[in-house]
Amino acid sequence: MIQINSFAVIGGDRRQAEMAESLVEDGCTVFAAAMEGAIFFNGVQKTSLQQAVENSQAVILPLPVSVDGKTLNAPLSDQRILLDDGFAHLMSDKKVFCGMASRLTRTSDLWNGAAVYDYSVQEEFAVRNSVPTAEGAIEIAMREFPGTINGSRCLVAGYGRIGKTLCGMLRGLGARVTATARKAKDLAWIEASGCRAFATSQLWKTSGYDLIFNTIPQMVFDAHTLARCAGDALVIDLASAPGGVDFEAAKRLGIRAIQALSLPGKCAPRAAGQIIKTTVYHMLEEEME
Amino acid sequence: MIQINSFAVIGGDRRQAEMAESLVEDGCTVFAAAMEGAIFFNGVQKTSLQQAVENSQAVILPLPVSVDGKTLNAPLSDQRILLDDGFAHLMSDKKVFCGMASRLTRTSDLWNGAAVYDYSVQEEFAVRNSVPTAEGAIEIAMREFPGTINGSRCLVAGYGRIGKTLCGMLRGLGARVTATARKAKDLAWIEASGCRAFATSQLWKTSGYDLIFNTIPQMVFDAHTLARCAGDALVIDLASAPGGVDFEAAKRLGIRAIQALSLPGKCAPRAAGQIIKTTVYHMLEEEME
Amino acid sequence: MIQINSFAVIGGDRRQAEMAESLVEDGCTVFAAAMEGAIFFNGVQKTSLQQAVENSQAVILPLPVSVDGKTLNAPLSDQRILLDDGFAHLMSDKKVFCGMASRLTRTSDLWNGAAVYDYSVQEEFAVRNSVPTAEGAIEIAMREFPGTINGSRCLVAGYGRIGKTLCGMLRGLGARVTATARKAKDLAWIEASGCRAFATSQLWKTSGYDLIFNTIPQMVFDAHTLARCAGDALVIDLASAPGGVDFEAAKRLGIRAIQALSLPGKCAPRAAGQIIKTTVYHMLEEEME
Amino acid sequence: MIQINSFAVIGGDRRQAEMAESLVEDGCTVFAAAMEGAIFFNGVQKTSLQQAVENSQAVILPLPVSVDGKTLNAPLSDQRILLDDGFAHLMSDKKVFCGMASRLTRTSDLWNGAAVYDYSVQEEFAVRNSVPTAEGAIEIAMREFPGTINGSRCLVAGYGRIGKTLCGMLRGLGARVTATARKAKDLAWIEASGCRAFATSQLWKTSGYDLIFNTIPQMVFDAHTLARCAGDALVIDLASAPGGVDFEAAKRLGIRAIQALSLPGKCAPRAAGQIIKTTVYHMLEEEME
Repeated sequence: MIQINSFAVIGGDRRQAEMAESLVEDGCTVFAAAMEGAIFFNGVQKTSLQQAVENSQAVILPLPVSVDGKTLNAPLSDQRILLDDGFAHLMSDKKVFCGMASRLTRTSDLWNGAAVYDYSVQEEFAVRNSVPTAEGAIEIAMREFPGTINGSRCLVAGYGRIGKTLCGMLRGLGARVTATARKAKDLAWIEASGCRAFATSQLWKTSGYDLIFNTIPQMVFDAHTLARCAGDALVIDLASAPGGVDFEAAKRLGIRAIQALSLPGKCAPRAAGQIIKTTVYHMLEEEME
Repeated sequence: MIQINSFAVIGGDRRQAEMAESLVEDGCTVFAAAMEGAIFFNGVQKTSLQQAVENSQAVILPLPVSVDGKTLNAPLSDQRILLDDGFAHLMSDKKVFCGMASRLTRTSDLWNGAAVYDYSVQEEFAVRNSVPTAEGAIEIAMREFPGTINGSRCLVAGYGRIGKTLCGMLRGLGARVTATARKAKDLAWIEASGCRAFATSQLWKTSGYDLIFNTIPQMVFDAHTLARCAGDALVIDLASAPGGVDFEAAKRLGIRAIQALSLPGKCAPRAAGQIIKTTVYHMLEEEME
Repeated sequence: MIQINSFAVIGGDRRQAEMAESLVEDGCTVFAAAMEGAIFFNGVQKTSLQQAVENSQAVILPLPVSVDGKTLNAPLSDQRILLDDGFAHLMSDKKVFCGMASRLTRTSDLWNGAAVYDYSVQEEFAVRNSVPTAEGAIEIAMREFPGTINGSRCLVAGYGRIGKTLCGMLRGLGARVTATARKAKDLAWIEASGCRAFATSQLWKTSGYDLIFNTIPQMVFDAHTLARCAGDALVIDLASAPGGVDFEAAKRLGIRAIQALSLPGKCAPRAAGQIIKTTVYHMLEEEME
Repeated sequence: MIQINSFAVIGGDRRQAEMAESLVEDGCTVFAAAMEGAIFFNGVQKTSLQQAVENSQAVILPLPVSVDGKTLNAPLSDQRILLDDGFAHLMSDKKVFCGMASRLTRTSDLWNGAAVYDYSVQEEFAVRNSVPTAEGAIEIAMREFPGTINGSRCLVAGYGRIGKTLCGMLRGLGARVTATARKAKDLAWIEASGCRAFATSQLWKTSGYDLIFNTIPQMVFDAHTLARCAGDALVIDLASAPGGVDFEAAKRLGIRAIQALSLPGKCAPRAAGQIIKTTVYHMLEEEME
């Protein structure tokens, strides 16, 4: 049982706004600050930063908590909220949840010893986010590829969380799915799931795909591999920056390549907000134990 | 074995253009007319209407062959091509394939006894088009629904071709799928496929969905049913005009409802073009037998 | 709403016994006769034939109602119950449900105009039975094939109800599934479901399967086709007698072939009993309308 | 590239025999010893222990290599082969692959520094074996459960390798699957795969299942939990001995519970043999790198 039922949601984009509403649906009292641009349909209360914090048992800050390392990430607000000693002091006796916590804690010595929790490093968080990421990738593929996913030959490079979820969904749509991995156990998993498997190191030897999804955050699809493997395929790079596709080479080769970043927040803000909420709940539950 | 390997592709949209290219990939000689705006990457030859027909063994006209009943449906052309005796005479000794053939044959008595074939009434054509239609519906749902399909509660009203394909894909993405049908045998099929089933007549009694897809071309989702059943759901109507959703009532009730028509051509023109090609091939093969 | 809630269940095997128990679970009063060997765990009442009929509003007879055309099919009884005028007279004012009704009605003129219903000819019945049939086939394959279904190359000949359900389940287990059909629309369905498709007439040209399931009630797998297509495969024939596999030829060729008949009753008697019950319910509901 | 292409296969059951044949199919030279009872259809050469070892570059011993810790596990042989210094000496300059290697290496000091490899501890081996294990469990369920898997309510306790593979297959057959796990990330995976999830610690609070599969090697289904959770369900325990089900309590409670051990070798010896082969290949490949 979680004892905490009042939250301050401060800063962030539509994802945080959806999270705030989702908390209210669960019966929590929620105060939102630095989100003037958000439209709430249920009882989320917009208030000042100070009031929000004072009235709440826990504070949830966005992912990332800061883009520039100095101010709060608050795209729905016109305010510029400095991450300074004052900010840290205001929250000193609260549980503070945020994404990429080191960008916060390095802004003030007052954070030392404070109850700061980083939901973005939880494995559960990454697993759950693989779902909106994979769906976002499929949405892009559906929009940009003139054929259907059903019956198409798909290649998924990398079999981490996103690769795994994506393969399952593509197969569920009726695609013919091949995936690559480095480790023997992952190749075994790929085959057990009804897909074809080969080692990532062999990528440059294959061809004949309609759609290629890269999930490996390394330069896997360099000019050479693109020329051999991508042919007429549409390439969608899901790996975090700088990504795993040589986009310049793709352009030269006449291969369509799309960089798709931050899909959960863009494609499924409600799901993304609920994932933060669920992760925070579980972190609180673990604390209680 | 099909003996025919030269085709005139006349009029139509991007779907017909993709079909033309796909015919060339199969080794056919293809002449395109009334498609000045199309860009071809392989050997499709743009030519005049007359030349196209004269040099080909068969002619493929678009779906629908005419929008207004008087001129050829040719959105990629600035020409206005009358469907008159001259047009009919030009094609009199060719096999002519088109969609919604009655709109063509009623334009001239010369069509009497001519070899006119309607690919749009073939059951195979309808089955194959259920795939891009279902994917188009899912693309819309992914774009408009702020949650993920995975884990969402989906209702599919109607279990004809589109309903069947859509249910399979939604389940393949990890949704919890309920479908409705009128006939006992279709309810049995729904359950056999791992979904929940109930009679369409009971629709107004249920609720609790995130996404509702209507495939029934009758006013199923009237104001009363929408109020009871749609709640916070996003409603996507796939039924051909006038559709099965009372959009005015949806607006009044604050329910988001989207009319989605002609999805194959819009969402997957290449797949849609290949489906026409495949259907034409099979009609030719049947002829040979 | 069904007004009938007392049933006589007379004759039949474990399937009918399970049906009787399932009726009791739904709140019905059930009398069982000619089932002395059955063991009931809930309130099914064993009684005489006459009492069973007299106390019930409807009678459910087995599938088939008779094996020899003269006596009731009652493998759980030592009695030999003649299907004669007396039998018909006893039931004259009841609704009588049975499988293969013509074997009953031709035993007495008193059946003329009687309320005899054949559940075995309902399409719903056939659809629902495709599930235990497909599972029975998979159970046999799992038992007899020394490999795993997952990853195996499966061929399903015929895409009727059983073929369709079987393909879905094999794919769900991770097999690589190819199916055949005669009609273009069924080939389209096969492809839409993520399997490979070709015309049944081309069977003899293919090979390379681990498991072959025949569902076509015609001599499809003759010596010639077996020799070409079956190779090292295990062949399971699901088609009703005389089946679609030349078993003698298979023996000569050293190919393992198994005839699998009446799977629902053998492999899943409870499911099979519930399917009869559900079908009877729906026939009663239709009557009411 | 593997440089080794001659193998001695010594001892073991049908699984090892299938492995030997599979090696021959790959072009290897294979000598079998202590397998007098095996029947080989291709070029596996039966020979003496000494000859087998002398003519081969690598030796493959069974899983487990010994049951009693003193003699070779060789159920297909009448010989009693001591694991002593002589045995160790014979193989001293070969690569030796076996399962549960410690049972071998503790039989002689000569094994110190020898090239002994344990395929049974490779993660790939465990992942691949989850497939025949899950299929074996499903085969048992199909045989023992009088209903169908399709439409049944299945509970899978534990979401390790076997739980994961089993859930996917049950869902692929159309079951309604619930799974339990301890870790938040595994609960997230369960939900992402379209199943329902709850914490293993909450097991005793739930009920309403037709089939329960335990994969947790701890006493999870004690009398209390069985009484609450198992009700009319069939319970299949897949956890290695002593297992996770109180079978005595199940008996007292009238609950059917089945212990299912060593499924790969029993249900799918060919697959199990190929899995050993594949794992050995990959261990050899890694060596080369």
